[in-house]
Amino acid sequence: MSTFPPIAATIGDPCGIGPEVVIKALASGAVPAPVLLIGDAEVVRRTIALTGAHLTVRAVQSFEAAQFAPGTVDVLDPGGLEARDITPGKVSPACGRATIRWWEIATELAEAKKVPAIVKGPTNGEAIRLATGDQAGDQARAAPAGKTFLFLITGPLRVVHLTDHITMREMLDHVRMHNVLELLRLTHASLRRWGIREPHIGVAGLNPHCYGPEDEQEIAPAVRQAQAEGIRASGPVAADSLFRLCTEGQYDCALAHYHDQGHIAVKTWRFSGNCAISLGYEPYIRMSVAHGTAFDIAGKGIADPLALTAALRTSAMLSAGKGFPKEG
Amino acid sequence: MSTFPPIAATIGDPCGIGPEVVIKALASGAVPAPVLLIGDAEVVRRTIALTGAHLTVRAVQSFEAAQFAPGTVDVLDPGGLEARDITPGKVSPACGRATIRWWEIATELAEAKKVPAIVKGPTNGEAIRLATGDQAGDQARAAPAGKTFLFLITGPLRVVHLTDHITMREMLDHVRMHNVLELLRLTHASLRRWGIREPHIGVAGLNPHCYGPEDEQEIAPAVRQAQAEGIRASGPVAADSLFRLCTEGQYDCALAHYHDQGHIAVKTWRFSGNCAISLGYEPYIRMSVAHGTAFDIAGKGIADPLALTAALRTSAMLSAGKGFPKEG
Repeated sequence: MSTFPPIAATIGDPCGIGPEVVIKALASGAVPAPVLLIGDAEVVRRTIALTGAHLTVRAVQSFEAAQFAPGTVDVLDPGGLEARDITPGKVSPACGRATIRWWEIATELAEAKKVPAIVKGPTNGEAIRLATGDQAGDQARAAPAGKTFLFLITGPLRVVHLTDHITMREMLDHVRMHNVLELLRLTHASLRRWGIREPHIGVAGLNPHCYGPEDEQEIAPAVRQAQAEGIRASGPVAADSLFRLCTEGQYDCALAHYHDQGHIAVKTWRFSGNCAISLGYEPYIRMSVAHGTAFDIAGKGIADPLALTAALRTSAMLSAGKGFPKEG
Repeated sequence: MSTFPPIAATIGDPCGIGPEVVIKALASGAVPAPVLLIGDAEVVRRTIALTGAHLTVRAVQSFEAAQFAPGTVDVLDPGGLEARDITPGKVSPACGRATIRWWEIATELAEAKKVPAIVKGPTNGEAIRLATGDQAGDQARAAPAGKTFLFLITGPLRVVHLTDHITMREMLDHVRMHNVLELLRLTHASLRRWGIREPHIGVAGLNPHCYGPEDEQEIAPAVRQAQAEGIRASGPVAADSLFRLCTEGQYDCALAHYHDQGHIAVKTWRFSGNCAISLGYEPYIRMSVAHGTAFDIAGKGIADPLALTAALRTSAMLSAGKGFPKEG
C-alpha cells in the first residue's frame, strides 16, 4: 500500500497542453502518490489516445468513489463541457469557465482535508477573462492579497518571495522587519511540515552587497529575531551570491524580497521543470506550474511534461512529509 | 604575423593568485594577442617555476623594448618591490603600493594609445588600503563616479549596468530616460568598435513584467529614441526572461538597471570564467576579473585561470575588432 496520501490535480484548459502534460506526467511513473484528476473525462480519454499512455479512464462523481487502481485514472468530472467547446489552440470561454469550476472543486477537497495537496494544470487567462468578465482574472482569484507568498522550486533552487506583482518603489516600503519575520516563520513551519527537519533559510540582502538601510534596519533584525525563535535563518546574504549558494545546496530555501530578485535567479539558472507553491493556504499545498497553455503546440503531442511532473512529484513528496524530491 | 595588436596586463598582487593565473592563461595558448605583463619580473620568474610553464622572462623598461618573441614573456618592471615584501597569502602594503603603480603604468600605456586594451590582475583591497590610507581603496580609484559602467561577460551572457554600488532607492531615481539612452548609445558604439556589426541590445524592465512607471515613462521612450537613432535596441523586456534569452543568443548584450539585476543573472547562471569591462574609458578596453586574490590558496599552484584567461582572450578579440570569443 502506498504511504503517500492521494492528491488532486486539475487538467488545465482542454484547448491547451494541460491534459497532455498531466497524462504524460502520470504515465511517467515519477509521481509516487495516487492522483485524482479533476476535469472532463472525455478530454482525458482523448489525451490518453494522443499520447499513447497505457491508462484507462474511470469517471467518478466524488472523491470517495475514486479507487486509484493501477493502470486507471480516476477523473472527477462535474460535467458541463461539450466537445464543440474544445478546439486545440483556440480560446474558449466555456473552457475558461470549466477550469475555474475544476479548481474550485480541488480547493474544496483540500479545505475539507480530503487531499493534502492540489495541483493546478495550466489555465488560459484570456479564456477565464471571457468567461468571467473579470479583468484581473485568474491570478487575483487565486491569491488573497498580502496573505500568500510565491514559493518557486527548480531542483535545489527554491525561493520564497516576500512581494510579487507590485512596483519596485512599493516593494521598498514593504521590506519591513515584521513582514520579513512573518514570512520566515511561515516558511520555516512549511518546510518542517514538508519533512525538512532543520530547514536552513538564506535571506537575501536588498541593496548591493547588503549595504543599505533596509539591510541593516529591517532584514538583519528580522533574521536575528527568527534565530532567537529557533529558526535556522542566515543573512542578509548578498543577493548575487545567495541563489548560487542555494543551487549548491547550502540553503534549503532562499527568501527573496521582490519578484525579479527570485525570478531572475530561477529562470536564468534553469528554465524547465519549475513549479510553484502558494504559501498561505496551510496546511494544504497549493501547487501550480510556471508555464502557460502553449496554444501554439496544443494537441500535437509534443509538449514537455517536465514542469507538471515536477509539480505532481513535489506535491506528493512534500504532502507526505518526505521532503523535496532528489534530482535524478 | 599576428593580426592582433599587443595588449597589456598587470600581474595583480604578488601575494595572491594573480601571477599564477596570468601565467597559466598565457601558457594555455588561448590568448591570441601578444601580451606585455606589468609587474615584478622576479615574481613572474618564480611563478613560471611554480606552474611549470614553458616560458622565459624578459624584463623590459618600456613598452617599446618589448619583443613578444615566442616562448618569452616581456615584463615591464618599474622595480621597487623586494623579495621580503612578498609572502603568499599575507597582506602586504608594499604589494598594495606596487599593484597601484603597475595599474597606473597600464593606464598610461592605454591613454598613450600604445595598447588598445589593459587587463588588471586581481588586487587586494586591504593591501591597497594599508598602502594608501584610502578607505574607499581600489574601487573608487578605478571609477570616476557616474561616468563608467560595468559590463559583465560570461560566455553569451553579457550585461551592462546602468548603476552599480548605490542603494535601490537611489537607483530608482537614476532610471531616467536620458541616462538609459546615453548608456544605450555608449554600449552600441562599444559593441560596434569591438566588431559586432549590428549589435542587438535587450533592455531590462525595472518592475515585474515591465508594469510600472519607470518602464513606461523612462525605459520605453529611451528604447524608442535609440531605435530612431539606428540602434538595434529592444525592450523593456521582462527582467526574468531577458537574461535567459541572452544565454540563448537572442541579444548581444543586456542592459540592466541595477547591480543585482545583472549580477544575480550572471553569478547564478555561471560562476566561473567571468570577466568585466569598465565602459567609459573608450577607445581603450579596461578589463578586470570578478574574483579576488584568493589568499587561502595563493602559492599552491591550484588556482583556476579560467576568468583571467577569458579576460585576456576577450580583450584581445574585442580590441582587434573581432567580436566576442566563441565558446569551445
